[in-house]
Amino acid sequence: MQIIDVIRIPTSGPGDVSGLKALIDQGRVRPAEIVAVMGKTEGNGCVNDYTREYATQALASLIGRHLAMEPEAVEQRVAFVMSGGTEGVLSPHITVFTRREAAAPAGTVHPGGKRLAVGVAFTRPFLPDELGRMAQVHETAAAVRTAMADAGIDDAQDVHFVQIKCPLLTASAMNEALAKGCTLVTDDTYASMAYSRGASALGVAQALGEIDAPRLHDDILLRDWSIYSRVASTSSGVELDRNVIIVMGMSERSASAYVVAHDVMADAIDLQAVARVLARLGLDGPSAAAERVVNVFAKAEASTHALVRGLRHTMLNDSDIHSTRHARAAVGAVVAAAVGHTAVYVSGGAEHQGPTGGGPIAIIARC
Amino acid sequence: MQIIDVIRIPTSGPGDVSGLKALIDQGRVRPAEIVAVMGKTEGNGCVNDYTREYATQALASLIGRHLAMEPEAVEQRVAFVMSGGTEGVLSPHITVFTRREAAAPAGTVHPGGKRLAVGVAFTRPFLPDELGRMAQVHETAAAVRTAMADAGIDDAQDVHFVQIKCPLLTASAMNEALAKGCTLVTDDTYASMAYSRGASALGVAQALGEIDAPRLHDDILLRDWSIYSRVASTSSGVELDRNVIIVMGMSERSASAYVVAHDVMADAIDLQAVARVLARLGLDGPSAAAERVVNVFAKAEASTHALVRGLRHTMLNDSDIHSTRHARAAVGAVVAAAVGHTAVYVSGGAEHQGPTGGGPIAIIARC
Amino acid sequence: MQIIDVIRIPTSGPGDVSGLKALIDQGRVRPAEIVAVMGKTEGNGCVNDYTREYATQALASLIGRHLAMEPEAVEQRVAFVMSGGTEGVLSPHITVFTRREAAAPAGTVHPGGKRLAVGVAFTRPFLPDELGRMAQVHETAAAVRTAMADAGIDDAQDVHFVQIKCPLLTASAMNEALAKGCTLVTDDTYASMAYSRGASALGVAQALGEIDAPRLHDDILLRDWSIYSRVASTSSGVELDRNVIIVMGMSERSASAYVVAHDVMADAIDLQAVARVLARLGLDGPSAAAERVVNVFAKAEASTHALVRGLRHTMLNDSDIHSTRHARAAVGAVVAAAVGHTAVYVSGGAEHQGPTGGGPIAIIARC
Amino acid sequence: MQIIDVIRIPTSGPGDVSGLKALIDQGRVRPAEIVAVMGKTEGNGCVNDYTREYATQALASLIGRHLAMEPEAVEQRVAFVMSGGTEGVLSPHITVFTRREAAAPAGTVHPGGKRLAVGVAFTRPFLPDELGRMAQVHETAAAVRTAMADAGIDDAQDVHFVQIKCPLLTASAMNEALAKGCTLVTDDTYASMAYSRGASALGVAQALGEIDAPRLHDDILLRDWSIYSRVASTSSGVELDRNVIIVMGMSERSASAYVVAHDVMADAIDLQAVARVLARLGLDGPSAAAERVVNVFAKAEASTHALVRGLRHTMLNDSDIHSTRHARAAVGAVVAAAVGHTAVYVSGGAEHQGPTGGGPIAIIARC
Repeated sequence: MQIIDVIRIPTSGPGDVSGLKALIDQGRVRPAEIVAVMGKTEGNGCVNDYTREYATQALASLIGRHLAMEPEAVEQRVAFVMSGGTEGVLSPHITVFTRREAAAPAGTVHPGGKRLAVGVAFTRPFLPDELGRMAQVHETAAAVRTAMADAGIDDAQDVHFVQIKCPLLTASAMNEALAKGCTLVTDDTYASMAYSRGASALGVAQALGEIDAPRLHDDILLRDWSIYSRVASTSSGVELDRNVIIVMGMSERSASAYVVAHDVMADAIDLQAVARVLARLGLDGPSAAAERVVNVFAKAEASTHALVRGLRHTMLNDSDIHSTRHARAAVGAVVAAAVGHTAVYVSGGAEHQGPTGGGPIAIIARC
Repeated sequence: MQIIDVIRIPTSGPGDVSGLKALIDQGRVRPAEIVAVMGKTEGNGCVNDYTREYATQALASLIGRHLAMEPEAVEQRVAFVMSGGTEGVLSPHITVFTRREAAAPAGTVHPGGKRLAVGVAFTRPFLPDELGRMAQVHETAAAVRTAMADAGIDDAQDVHFVQIKCPLLTASAMNEALAKGCTLVTDDTYASMAYSRGASALGVAQALGEIDAPRLHDDILLRDWSIYSRVASTSSGVELDRNVIIVMGMSERSASAYVVAHDVMADAIDLQAVARVLARLGLDGPSAAAERVVNVFAKAEASTHALVRGLRHTMLNDSDIHSTRHARAAVGAVVAAAVGHTAVYVSGGAEHQGPTGGGPIAIIARC
Repeated sequence: MQIIDVIRIPTSGPGDVSGLKALIDQGRVRPAEIVAVMGKTEGNGCVNDYTREYATQALASLIGRHLAMEPEAVEQRVAFVMSGGTEGVLSPHITVFTRREAAAPAGTVHPGGKRLAVGVAFTRPFLPDELGRMAQVHETAAAVRTAMADAGIDDAQDVHFVQIKCPLLTASAMNEALAKGCTLVTDDTYASMAYSRGASALGVAQALGEIDAPRLHDDILLRDWSIYSRVASTSSGVELDRNVIIVMGMSERSASAYVVAHDVMADAIDLQAVARVLARLGLDGPSAAAERVVNVFAKAEASTHALVRGLRHTMLNDSDIHSTRHARAAVGAVVAAAVGHTAVYVSGGAEHQGPTGGGPIAIIARC
Repeated sequence: MQIIDVIRIPTSGPGDVSGLKALIDQGRVRPAEIVAVMGKTEGNGCVNDYTREYATQALASLIGRHLAMEPEAVEQRVAFVMSGGTEGVLSPHITVFTRREAAAPAGTVHPGGKRLAVGVAFTRPFLPDELGRMAQVHETAAAVRTAMADAGIDDAQDVHFVQIKCPLLTASAMNEALAKGCTLVTDDTYASMAYSRGASALGVAQALGEIDAPRLHDDILLRDWSIYSRVASTSSGVELDRNVIIVMGMSERSASAYVVAHDVMADAIDLQAVARVLARLGLDGPSAAAERVVNVFAKAEASTHALVRGLRHTMLNDSDIHSTRHARAAVGAVVAAAVGHTAVYVSGGAEHQGPTGGGPIAIIARC
């Protein structure tokens, strides 16, 4: 029987691990039990955002010192998902997930009903020409199923959020691959982030049976926006070469003190979707939310039809600020306004994650 | 007895006047009755935002053609307030205010109670060394009182929003002034926008008796954030050399089909403040808001203490995107989520307009 | 026998036409003789740069007032090529080209040898699905030949610079076209600017016989960078729907007081290429250049292999500042350093205009 | 008798230390001999540039592993000066300085004449209210003299470059200081970087006798641009709390295989100044420079009078890209064009370092 703990910690910069260090020193967090860390760092969230790898290295070093492991080995053991971009009111922070096994006979179910369960898995490294294509989709789907098993979740209905961190194509990697005669899905680094996110999301949709397998092929990627997952959240970064998968859901084999629920925002200002998730968690009214919500995990993007409820947005025509940054600022503020705090995890680039312009949203709350 | 009409028109770019032109051609808007146009244009809203002057010139040219006036003369007659920056979901648009006199004996009061009234006034041009100082405050206060009289509003309690457009110091203007031996309030163009907005807001506070006169002096400007107006909204731009003032309020000498109410957002995610204004207008629930709200006018800024509800924001440390852009994206999304449309007027730089990090918000609705 | 005059005028903002107005008022420039205006405006030079259309409208209005024509009609008569982006030291300005016919018997040749000649032509408007494809290439090639004839240039060797302004695909235009079932060359507004520039450059290469016709087909566009023109300079903007072509060269049927020469910069720091052009014009040393150079016209771009002389550049990985802005800043400074003034015309996006990372450069000097 | 080695190493990202690691592994660099590392990292070079501290930590960790020291201790021993911003053609790299003592009787002078000598010193940490004021100036001056002694340089004429890394005021540090009743030199984080750079440069000027002591007081800081050092290069960053000083010069007590020379660029396009330094080093022509130049160290900034040789620049009015980024792109390209490679150290913000808009430039070459 697993017990998950979820702790949100503010950070003063991408290299700041003092909050987690203090909790470890106090015995509140046991380094060996950390399975995942999801963070918001204050870079631009786009290609040249080095705050993600900097934060990851700082965290891996800290945990490594306690486990007597090299940082590289820690990165093989813990799923670090750093999402760049704290536009608008968003506040830099990390959410640490720990997992321990409670002694219980095999097959014991939690008497209080289903509780938060978390599972983690990795794919193998991707070749440049696999990125943004079915190879990435299928590998991801297999890894999602592995992570579900790891979480003790049997039913796809019990999966409420699947966070994936996935690679991108840098200019140098592309040149190398092209020199070898590879054909890549795109020759633009920024576009490669979108392809990687989209393929990873479709991998989730495939694993959970959200989409019939025959509908999934290379041609729909970043083209047919009607095909999407309702629980996938994918984020691409320069600092890794494979997909890292974190499945969050509800399991009767969990004795955690937390529950999770989700819904889909139909557009960037869909306050009602946030309200529905809070209602499912029994959180009516801002004070209940402020007391019991641990964190929110949501995706944001500019709708590809360049409209929000029929009115033009300018995010896709802006050559000064990337559309993902605009979208995070907007959705981050709406979500923060709904739950009453700004250290929420809102990540950009929601290709095939919810409808165009919208995205999945999940909330973890204390019981 | 005045009758105000308020029409919100989407635009396809800063030079797009086709929407207003169509309404004029249809007879829905009479050019001679236009008193003010408030718009959101898609520039950066900062120093080098030329979309504001471009939009103003396009509108003045259109109106001028109908009134057989040069554009420059139109700008003396109509208050154009273009606010740059449509970050996040904000949608470029203009709100056109017209005013006509209904035949009625002097002293007639509207049988249906107070209705929306609008008044306009201008200050004289400011010298570079007056900007951001008491000279600008006092001239503005006098002009606010002139605009109240123009609106037929006697009681400061009936003033719900005072929109001001004010000048800034460009690099060349500063060099010229310094060469003449002037001492300026700042030698930074961007900072000059903040000083001008702050002084203009304090002018409103003085005119409406929100602040005791002795508390107002140069030293508090951009320093003592506890001193602010609850109805001022000021916006600075490179395209003018004086303050333009638009007072919106309620008057029994108005027979308009609109009402206005206001409140103050305490911070960037103060959804409750928006809800209070809607409630005052009798708009409970999103469908009522969607039907009757004509537009929202609100101010946005990054709190100077670098926190939102105790959590750090990164807006003031961001050297890639100015804090005003972050703040507009955040507040714009919160306001849009509350009223259900994105063509709202949210303007950046709320110095002495509401508490630090918050700002006044007013909503005009159909009766 | 044609006489071309070339005048460079600094501007104080994109809407500033006071310099040209003064020259017209003094009789130095006759509005009816203006054939082209090339300008650098201080927008971002990318998709949402409205300074180009603002400057164009301001100039067309000024000239229109003198010719008693509507601005729209002036835009059909004069080739306005506004290039956004004055990064680094680049100084906003316009270069005005006028042309008049000197009385001379047909066939007269200039006794002083070949002199500067200028010709102008327009293509028809392009459909969205023609942009960035052979349709645009072939139409452009035909228009280049028309412009050569207009300039009185028979030999392609006498063409030293072909400036083209070409359209882009906005988000709304793309959505409209896709709704009609069109297949577009790209679904990204920013990428569409590159495709349009590339196709226009290949049109020049085709017209001048720089490339064998069979090598030109859709597949090489933005892919085979070994295929390029040595004299094309193309610039895309949101403000037009067709290509505008300005051919500059040397003709014995010209009696202008100016000469022009060109070369190709091999990379962004190819100071030697600038020196070669100056040498061809007999301008050895900075003081000769400062005295006789009227203006420089050059293209800038980030090399697609992400290297400059074997060392990595970061322009293509930068998600805060577009690579065209970096490239203009770099090449603009090199060119300005070589000729001793900063109001040079350096324009971004040199697809198929010179080798990757380099670009054509032409200099007009007084005799 | 000291022997300095200077090695320039390209980097593939701010966390990349593989180049230095390889040289250490090969025995080419001995970790214990490293006295300073100056690098260009690819952040924005402004307030929220975390690539500087990330690079510093990665380097300190690498060196620490070889010296069996904690990274924090390495930072007390080696002067790390990371300058953010590789705009335009600038290529990320580090320059490693090592120093060892060659056995020689005291007082021995190098038979081949003066050679490159390097000395390092640190000030004490600064309080927030000392930053940008005379306290910082005087402490810096004392440390410069300490570093000269460390370098074996007696005569100020033999100092060719003084590189300083200095702190800034973050938003949180300012709030803390203001809460304690401190008065700070500015309440803007970005402005604080300029004040710190300016005060540090004046410290150099004081130490070298470039400026008469009575002329130095708080009022001239960032005001009187006629007061400046001809050899100071200062760079501010969020990652330190004191000044780090590296003095480079020529000493007869050095047996290095390198020489150094310097001059002052009068403006951002002063190619002639670069040529003069090359000439002093006997490097006439690009091929000699390409062969023998190890690296260039130069400062860049936008001239405060908003002009370059009488023509307007737009750097100070640009609210999308900070002026330091524009200036680095421009000066970096000019310097790279002159010496033929792009991995040059050009750093922004040249307050009191050379005349306004210009800056010191030093070149180290192999003998």
